[in-house]
Amino acid sequence: MRKLYIGNKNYSSWSMRPWVLMKQAGIPFEEVMVRFDSFDANSQFKNTIGALNPVAKVPVLVDGDLVVWDTLAIAEYLAETFPQKQLWPRAAADRARARSICAEMHSGFGSLRNLCGMNIEASLADVGARLLNDDPDLPGEVERIVQMWSGLLDAHGGPLLFGDFSIADSYFAPVGTRIKTYGLPVPPAITAYIERVQALPGVKAWIDDALAEKDFLAFEEPYRQGR
Amino acid sequence: MRKLYIGNKNYSSWSMRPWVLMKQAGIPFEEVMVRFDSFDANSQFKNTIGALNPVAKVPVLVDGDLVVWDTLAIAEYLAETFPQKQLWPRAAADRARARSICAEMHSGFGSLRNLCGMNIEASLADVGARLLNDDPDLPGEVERIVQMWSGLLDAHGGPLLFGDFSIADSYFAPVGTRIKTYGLPVPPAITAYIERVQALPGVKAWIDDALAEKDFLAFEEPYRQGR
Ligand SMILES: N[C@@H](CCC(=O)N[C@@H](CS)C(=O)NCC(=O)O)C(=O)O
Ligand SMILES: N[C@@H](CCC(=O)N[C@@H](CS)C(=O)NCC(=O)O)C(=O)O
Repeated sequence: MRKLYIGNKNYSSWSMRPWVLMKQAGIPFEEVMVRFDSFDANSQFKNTIGALNPVAKVPVLVDGDLVVWDTLAIAEYLAETFPQKQLWPRAAADRARARSICAEMHSGFGSLRNLCGMNIEASLADVGARLLNDDPDLPGEVERIVQMWSGLLDAHGGPLLFGDFSIADSYFAPVGTRIKTYGLPVPPAITAYIERVQALPGVKAWIDDALAEKDFLAFEEPYRQGR
Repeated sequence: MRKLYIGNKNYSSWSMRPWVLMKQAGIPFEEVMVRFDSFDANSQFKNTIGALNPVAKVPVLVDGDLVVWDTLAIAEYLAETFPQKQLWPRAAADRARARSICAEMHSGFGSLRNLCGMNIEASLADVGARLLNDDPDLPGEVERIVQMWSGLLDAHGGPLLFGDFSIADSYFAPVGTRIKTYGLPVPPAITAYIERVQALPGVKAWIDDALAEKDFLAFEEPYRQGR
């Protein structure tokens, strides 16, 4: 059985993407959760994941002899292995566009990723307002997300970015949780899209697990003293 | 005819990847070079590329109505469009590994990318030695490159990372130029691999053009006052 190694569900945005993808697409897998004790070289997390994958980051997919790391490589591997699941959009032009925005997410949005770390259970709207005011790049990144999603929802008529569920929705699911956690202001159509994504069974399952986790990791919490 | 928008050949490492890939694989395209006058919002570069692609970065591939941005999305688009070219390695396990390391490059190696900006014509070994000494992450990143390439060259017996030329070699071609420019110390087998890559006609053509460019961009030159 293929195994997906992930980190804490409340915090690990990269782990969320392939987990949600496989759950929502009905691809069976076994989850191996490796708690973020710390990211120090001698942590139990780094040692466990480092034994699988030289980068020592999650997610990692282990499929028989094969070890695939990095969300984008895992997504492509799954798309190729399960062509009948149509994980990328069906039309070649949509597929190219979906790959462009996923790659854009993968290497971009530095402020959103670094300042607004995923924290599903937290409510940090005051922090969000301050960050939007203080950080030079965050407003433009939020604006780009709004423009990207609005354009795609308009073009395809919803309900999801490319009509039906695809890798792109899983790739941006953690961005939706951040917009909620940090109360980042977005138009109603964007809030409605986020709600539709979070109501998908595969996404809801992750969020429910994250809320049940109740594991406060101080090194992942620049803005809270406790739960 | 498909068009690839690129930046200055001496400096634009991301542009180099799909250009080299298409040249080396014999995929016809027209090159549109948009000089890096600056990356300010009102620069000619940002305006030209921003008219194609909301991220306003190169490379951008325009194929008829289709606009594909981001190197990794362009690589996947080309692999899918030209299956007979075998741009990814043939074996599924190799393909998964190649995607893992390309995605790792795409979002990682922050010190190598930020401190050792591509500068094909320059010789900055003194700078490289200082950076290796001063930066906490650069030595580990170089070590990871050495371990990655050595492992693959051993496993496949060379000459390239997965035996024959693949997207992976194009993805790491700019890393080879940085190792040379900054004189980063690597074992002889790694130097030999870099030389083999740089001797490929598609890579050699880019390097020759970069050397012929003779365009000194002060904002891309933290270490030189002139050519
Ligand atoms: N580019 C990687 C990023 C993975 C990543 O940064 N994962 C985090 C957890 S969300 C991690 O494992 N961090 C450990 C560390 O930084 O040492 C991917 O797409 O999978
Ligand atoms: N993740 C992008 C990165 C592209 C990128 O950063 N390109 C640089 C030139 S090498 C650029 O256009 N920079 C303009 C800017 O930062 O405004 C990709 O893989 O294509």
